[in-house]
Amino acid sequence: MRTKAEFVESLRKQKPKVYLHGEKVENIVDHPMFRIPIDSVGVECDLINNPKYQDLTTKISPLINRRVSRWYALWESAEDLIAFQHMLRELTPLFVCIPGCEVTSIINAIWVATYDVDKIYNTNYHERLMNYLKYVQENGIMLTGAITDVRGDRSKRPSEQADPDMYLHVVERRKDGIVVRGAKASNTGGPVANEIFAMPTRTMRENEKDFCVAFAIPVDTEGVTFLARTWGAPEAKGEIDQPLSRRFGLCEATTFFDNVFVPWDRVFLCGEPEGSESAINTFIQNRGVFCGCRAGRIDAIIGAAALIAEYNGVPQASHIRRKITEMIIGAETVYALAYTAATGGIQHPSGVFSASSLEANVGRLLATYKLSECFPSLMDITGGLIVTSPSEEELKNPETKKYVDKYLKAKPDVPAEHRLRLIKYIEDMVAGKVGNWMLPESILGSGPPENQMIDIWNSYDLEKRKRIAKLNAGIILE
Amino acid sequence: MRTKAEFVESLRKQKPKVYLHGEKVENIVDHPMFRIPIDSVGVECDLINNPKYQDLTTKISPLINRRVSRWYALWESAEDLIAFQHMLRELTPLFVCIPGCEVTSIINAIWVATYDVDKIYNTNYHERLMNYLKYVQENGIMLTGAITDVRGDRSKRPSEQADPDMYLHVVERRKDGIVVRGAKASNTGGPVANEIFAMPTRTMRENEKDFCVAFAIPVDTEGVTFLARTWGAPEAKGEIDQPLSRRFGLCEATTFFDNVFVPWDRVFLCGEPEGSESAINTFIQNRGVFCGCRAGRIDAIIGAAALIAEYNGVPQASHIRRKITEMIIGAETVYALAYTAATGGIQHPSGVFSASSLEANVGRLLATYKLSECFPSLMDITGGLIVTSPSEEELKNPETKKYVDKYLKAKPDVPAEHRLRLIKYIEDMVAGKVGNWMLPESILGSGPPENQMIDIWNSYDLEKRKRIAKLNAGIILE
Amino acid sequence: MRTKAEFVESLRKQKPKVYLHGEKVENIVDHPMFRIPIDSVGVECDLINNPKYQDLTTKISPLINRRVSRWYALWESAEDLIAFQHMLRELTPLFVCIPGCEVTSIINAIWVATYDVDKIYNTNYHERLMNYLKYVQENGIMLTGAITDVRGDRSKRPSEQADPDMYLHVVERRKDGIVVRGAKASNTGGPVANEIFAMPTRTMRENEKDFCVAFAIPVDTEGVTFLARTWGAPEAKGEIDQPLSRRFGLCEATTFFDNVFVPWDRVFLCGEPEGSESAINTFIQNRGVFCGCRAGRIDAIIGAAALIAEYNGVPQASHIRRKITEMIIGAETVYALAYTAATGGIQHPSGVFSASSLEANVGRLLATYKLSECFPSLMDITGGLIVTSPSEEELKNPETKKYVDKYLKAKPDVPAEHRLRLIKYIEDMVAGKVGNWMLPESILGSGPPENQMIDIWNSYDLEKRKRIAKLNAGIILE
Amino acid sequence: MRTKAEFVESLRKQKPKVYLHGEKVENIVDHPMFRIPIDSVGVECDLINNPKYQDLTTKISPLINRRVSRWYALWESAEDLIAFQHMLRELTPLFVCIPGCEVTSIINAIWVATYDVDKIYNTNYHERLMNYLKYVQENGIMLTGAITDVRGDRSKRPSEQADPDMYLHVVERRKDGIVVRGAKASNTGGPVANEIFAMPTRTMRENEKDFCVAFAIPVDTEGVTFLARTWGAPEAKGEIDQPLSRRFGLCEATTFFDNVFVPWDRVFLCGEPEGSESAINTFIQNRGVFCGCRAGRIDAIIGAAALIAEYNGVPQASHIRRKITEMIIGAETVYALAYTAATGGIQHPSGVFSASSLEANVGRLLATYKLSECFPSLMDITGGLIVTSPSEEELKNPETKKYVDKYLKAKPDVPAEHRLRLIKYIEDMVAGKVGNWMLPESILGSGPPENQMIDIWNSYDLEKRKRIAKLNAGIILE
Repeated sequence: MRTKAEFVESLRKQKPKVYLHGEKVENIVDHPMFRIPIDSVGVECDLINNPKYQDLTTKISPLINRRVSRWYALWESAEDLIAFQHMLRELTPLFVCIPGCEVTSIINAIWVATYDVDKIYNTNYHERLMNYLKYVQENGIMLTGAITDVRGDRSKRPSEQADPDMYLHVVERRKDGIVVRGAKASNTGGPVANEIFAMPTRTMRENEKDFCVAFAIPVDTEGVTFLARTWGAPEAKGEIDQPLSRRFGLCEATTFFDNVFVPWDRVFLCGEPEGSESAINTFIQNRGVFCGCRAGRIDAIIGAAALIAEYNGVPQASHIRRKITEMIIGAETVYALAYTAATGGIQHPSGVFSASSLEANVGRLLATYKLSECFPSLMDITGGLIVTSPSEEELKNPETKKYVDKYLKAKPDVPAEHRLRLIKYIEDMVAGKVGNWMLPESILGSGPPENQMIDIWNSYDLEKRKRIAKLNAGIILE
Repeated sequence: MRTKAEFVESLRKQKPKVYLHGEKVENIVDHPMFRIPIDSVGVECDLINNPKYQDLTTKISPLINRRVSRWYALWESAEDLIAFQHMLRELTPLFVCIPGCEVTSIINAIWVATYDVDKIYNTNYHERLMNYLKYVQENGIMLTGAITDVRGDRSKRPSEQADPDMYLHVVERRKDGIVVRGAKASNTGGPVANEIFAMPTRTMRENEKDFCVAFAIPVDTEGVTFLARTWGAPEAKGEIDQPLSRRFGLCEATTFFDNVFVPWDRVFLCGEPEGSESAINTFIQNRGVFCGCRAGRIDAIIGAAALIAEYNGVPQASHIRRKITEMIIGAETVYALAYTAATGGIQHPSGVFSASSLEANVGRLLATYKLSECFPSLMDITGGLIVTSPSEEELKNPETKKYVDKYLKAKPDVPAEHRLRLIKYIEDMVAGKVGNWMLPESILGSGPPENQMIDIWNSYDLEKRKRIAKLNAGIILE
Repeated sequence: MRTKAEFVESLRKQKPKVYLHGEKVENIVDHPMFRIPIDSVGVECDLINNPKYQDLTTKISPLINRRVSRWYALWESAEDLIAFQHMLRELTPLFVCIPGCEVTSIINAIWVATYDVDKIYNTNYHERLMNYLKYVQENGIMLTGAITDVRGDRSKRPSEQADPDMYLHVVERRKDGIVVRGAKASNTGGPVANEIFAMPTRTMRENEKDFCVAFAIPVDTEGVTFLARTWGAPEAKGEIDQPLSRRFGLCEATTFFDNVFVPWDRVFLCGEPEGSESAINTFIQNRGVFCGCRAGRIDAIIGAAALIAEYNGVPQASHIRRKITEMIIGAETVYALAYTAATGGIQHPSGVFSASSLEANVGRLLATYKLSECFPSLMDITGGLIVTSPSEEELKNPETKKYVDKYLKAKPDVPAEHRLRLIKYIEDMVAGKVGNWMLPESILGSGPPENQMIDIWNSYDLEKRKRIAKLNAGIILE
Repeated sequence: MRTKAEFVESLRKQKPKVYLHGEKVENIVDHPMFRIPIDSVGVECDLINNPKYQDLTTKISPLINRRVSRWYALWESAEDLIAFQHMLRELTPLFVCIPGCEVTSIINAIWVATYDVDKIYNTNYHERLMNYLKYVQENGIMLTGAITDVRGDRSKRPSEQADPDMYLHVVERRKDGIVVRGAKASNTGGPVANEIFAMPTRTMRENEKDFCVAFAIPVDTEGVTFLARTWGAPEAKGEIDQPLSRRFGLCEATTFFDNVFVPWDRVFLCGEPEGSESAINTFIQNRGVFCGCRAGRIDAIIGAAALIAEYNGVPQASHIRRKITEMIIGAETVYALAYTAATGGIQHPSGVFSASSLEANVGRLLATYKLSECFPSLMDITGGLIVTSPSEEELKNPETKKYVDKYLKAKPDVPAEHRLRLIKYIEDMVAGKVGNWMLPESILGSGPPENQMIDIWNSYDLEKRKRIAKLNAGIILE
């Protein structure tokens, strides 16, 4: 499987059109602001090649009969889904986020969609996708997923927008391929990938066929432009402050498709509303995998909370125990819902196994709330130093070190430096760059909470329970 | 398997010492206040003999190689636990509660405890219990579980009470058996059973050996006295008002053991603190099964809420949809936690399979909160008629019927009578006799919420997460 | 001021058409089911004549220059509103509910509405109302307020109903008066009053003029029929069980107006949409007074919770302290909101002082949630005995008394009887007849929560804060 | 009153010992990182001299019979307290935080404490403080408040710490003054002030007399060292990104007192436990003023939420309306509690008026929770662009501007630039530097939530309500 060095080399050879802070970036590999985003994506390459993590992060792909990254494999069983969410829970506490889950979701969603559309229209999208996925798996191609259209006026459907480009759409169908126009927002990873895989952001209606388009193209395809911003703290000095954001931070891009040509072998949907429905439904059913990640983030917060309580000398204070117990409840709840969703899933004839939408969406929804609640709780447990502690540089100057060593010490057997390290870690996680990115991402990634509310309502068997009410009230007889 | 008629017949033959409202009850079968409690217990007999419900409610017991009620069988696998909670979720909406789960919990807990104690002390409790359980299964003996001691001053342990009788304990060890004294509160079913199965209410310490006692005896054993109260609405007339409590309501007893003799073959623990610990741990691990019941109760409330919204003409009002969605979230959350607890359980060498304590207790805890929240929500959705609607008898008098028919109608195609029936059902469920019993029972049955908070804290691997915090903060290296 | 004896005497002389459980009630004063409802209404008479409570419950009415019950007086200042909510907070813990606040709300609302309508239409409603109110105050007339129409299909406005009678409306205008038809639901008190005061349940539009009708008539006016139900526990024996519902319980009626004639001097609105708007707005602004009552109910629950924790021996358990602290937060929050609403209110030119809608509705909304949350908390703190404790009659039989005395005792210096009394009180309050009525009433009385959500949105100055966002974002300059 | 220019000039003349990022700062006025903190403190100078804001921000001080800043004046009536919280609510949305409230709290607390201590010990602290406060008011001295000791092992009291310096304490009493040692954490403002006013962080016991010390000294007193960190975004370019943190950000310091000499005329407490109690109680009673600030912050968030919903085209979406209504509820609730606390306060014989602790602490506690809940809600309403939007610099390059202008537009009549400005403002406020500081500050400023829980429990009249429970249960007679 491709190593991180190979991935970086592949990036170096590409020429995507990328702007950052108003300036064109010649080669992202050489740009200091892209160092951390490339490292953060590259973590996956390191993990899949590390024997210690291989069971967790890889599986045998029947397509090519070789071990591949789980992020680029199909979910073929409940076990696959559970292994995926388990992987995220184990790794997220260590790496904040290993981007790629969106790509996995897209591959699986379009796998189902192409199968269903072929059945209806006798097309051959599914074979194309199969060939493409083989290519991806064989060559360790790294993808970025592009789903969220910019959407213009949110109160209007795609077909009702004043400017039709508010949703990515087909503007021309040629013999050799199609031409698309539009933009995708919140495109995590952006140019830090080899190819972009685009799919519709919602189900489309009959009069919205041109918006039903899915395809994959290299990031440096003519007409593609990325307006990027990068997270992470490349400016961090020393080794204590910003311990997470000095090594973690992704690129987030708004990606524009300015009459971009896509050859037919890379087109996976083109004008079939049923395909958008199959894809979105599959996406919704599998939202539960993101619970693994959120549970892992809560686990990380729990660890920090329990440790700072200990370092402060009050690990058994009843209100702190209660707050940490609430966090545990959060982590286990969202994990259990996704787990139950996976085991109660169904096999699609295409081979993809999709979770039960009901529990998956309850889990994903609660993940948002439960993780959000951990932020103020951890701040409360940590105390004011989270925003007032001095910097690590005070440890280097003996004039100031003496004060830090003496006065930032709390529990007798824990050196002040350890406490300061922990506080800086907590600050970074919930009141610094990582927190700034992680909380909104946890809330909005894979769809905003209200979407999940709707999907929950739609997935529950309400009629069955209304019937019970009628029986019990004597309105009907059995 | 024993039929309801046989069960009633068996009750008729017994002579338990029962008091109700200050008077001795000669025979509960003939007492009007016991009719509904006996019917409510008898539901189980009907179900296990009904082919339609047999898969749901019975399994083959390897002890006697015959089909037995799930309430009187061991949990031998994750599938058993899941089948049990599934059974409760399906049946609870129809029957409010089919008592017996406490008995199942006790049997499984003492099965493990006797096995563990025998290993330590070379005793033969386990064989005794096996023989007893065979007898129970073969003869369709109905049990009532007695766990909760009266506990006296709650701030003191059993050994610290001014009066040692506050916890049931052994007062004499004879050749042929033991003599016990004390009382058990909140003894659901009470005399509506053939035998009482008692176990300790908590783990005991070395100096509390006499409180480690488990046994089973007929309800009419000399020295046993029940102070009973009965639920249900035997006074209900007609067929519309109090539709649940006219057919459902249990007997709740405080049961006193006044120097009661128990022969050795019915003694399953007697002085072994390790047994109390094994039993309580097993009990805690399996608290999740009660989630099936709570989820079912929420399902019933959801059905009523959705139907009354429809009958009122506003099934799509956004605030009502949101409230019902919150209820769905509650039901699915608690169910998923118990499900995950079951699949992540472990096989004890005695053959009993116990769920994972962490998820089981999170589920059980949330069940309390989620069900509680449904009560005011359903009242809100229903509207003021829940406490102000006229009685069904107004439908019988033409003078008043004309008003009811005209003015209690809301949605045009739903007769006023149907709406009134539904309102009466809802009143009974959340603002009437069933609600009065069900909400406290849901909160406190199988232990109060604070117990579950403690068990959650104890079950989560906090050290693993503290270690991650140390790693990420640079306090330790991998 | 009228005494309770005089009030009962006045009831005896009336001949309202009342049905209870399908039968016509000849005289409510002689009917056993009406004893408690009459007593519960009569509490007010006792209080206003009791020197100890006179400051709390009465004020000088400038209309007649005499001391009158606060329930039948205008709110003329912030102090009046605060005195009213203070009175409710002090008395509710002792009496559950002293009905009449709805009447006070109506009087004040129609006082404003008649004033406003007279200004527009040059009518003389206001003088009529003034004369009527003088008559009420001078003669100690007791009123029942009729607001909530039966409403038919809730998704439709009054003018859109298939049957126009779903909202009380004028069917004929005569020289000497008007004829009205329709029904009012959730008419607390019902026939336990001298007169009915009716007002519209919502604001009406131009095409809904006939629904804009307010008037007052004797309960035994021709054409008026009450379908009543009564709360309270007249069947209670002894002196311990159901200690609240043996003395408290109201009559709730659905009241039908079958072509009822109202003479002009009793008509206060008849066809003026502006009047419905003035009245409803005034009603909404003063919803805060109900916070006094809800805070008082929470106070009562807090007292019970703290006392049972003490009687159980665990008054300092951290989770119990936390739960009680949450209850305190609830009580103080809703009270403070109503207090702030009152002090920030405005004087209407008619002399009525109305609170600020924003804080009043926040308070009223939170009252619902905060009180609801106390129910399960108190059950949890009390323990299982709330549904399983034996009856007081066991204390009378020496056979059973010995068990109760010994085993229901917890804290050494508190007799078992005291603990049993307290448990019975708690049961009655949150899991018995009083609770069954009080919780829905607390949620729905003065309008369902969703109404308050809407009124909050409408009352907050959103534009001011959007402007600040524009300023801070640099979209506009100051 | 002192202008901002005069304040800066006064800072320039001081020589405090300040370290930032490990380096000694020669003069904070010339250091680029201190520009924003000085500006943020200087806002107060501008406001009190601006006629438009003078009523809001100043009052006549009876001490010097001149108009002074409210931040440096005593609270002498309920009106003063309300004016103060009103001022904070109005200004906070515009300025995030105008530091100084902690100083006002200290002045008032020590005013009461010195009065009380003089009564007991016949000391003359009160006169000293009066003279000092006159000096401060006359000369426009700017103070920084130092309360929070570093506290060492949090499970131990001051007297139990291994190192007594964990709480600031008197180490020597001389003829001319005292010598103190210790450190104060979370010292907002730090060296951006003329003098430090220190008071105890908690009540002290008899054996902790040396920790009862309050005093005021210039920031450049010998032995005082500040380890500072600064907030704000001095690096911000252009005019759109980081619109709040480019102008707002405070200095936060840990301040060390290394055998610092304080002359007697600046010592306001020195060894009197009663003084620590009076001071802390006064501090607790007046915690409510901070509610004004939190309500104002919520108002700002509401404005942003309502505006972005409008700019996105969905201002009426029911779930957004509900979320904004919840925010309104939060703001009004905390404000109303503080308002009620103020009006229910009491006059201390020293002339200071202190609010009612009960409502003040409920308000302060809820402020934490309510503000915390707004953060994820605003993120949710805003959408993913909060972390993925491109920078303002893309608007300057025509290559990228065309994409931004076309694709970041949502509602037709709102230019993309306005929407981007708003998103950047929101990001800064809840997922950027301002948010990072503001949320923890809101949670922990004036004491962590658990302190308020304890103060609520202590302030409520529980005995009164337990008595009602006894009455209602028939345990006592009136």
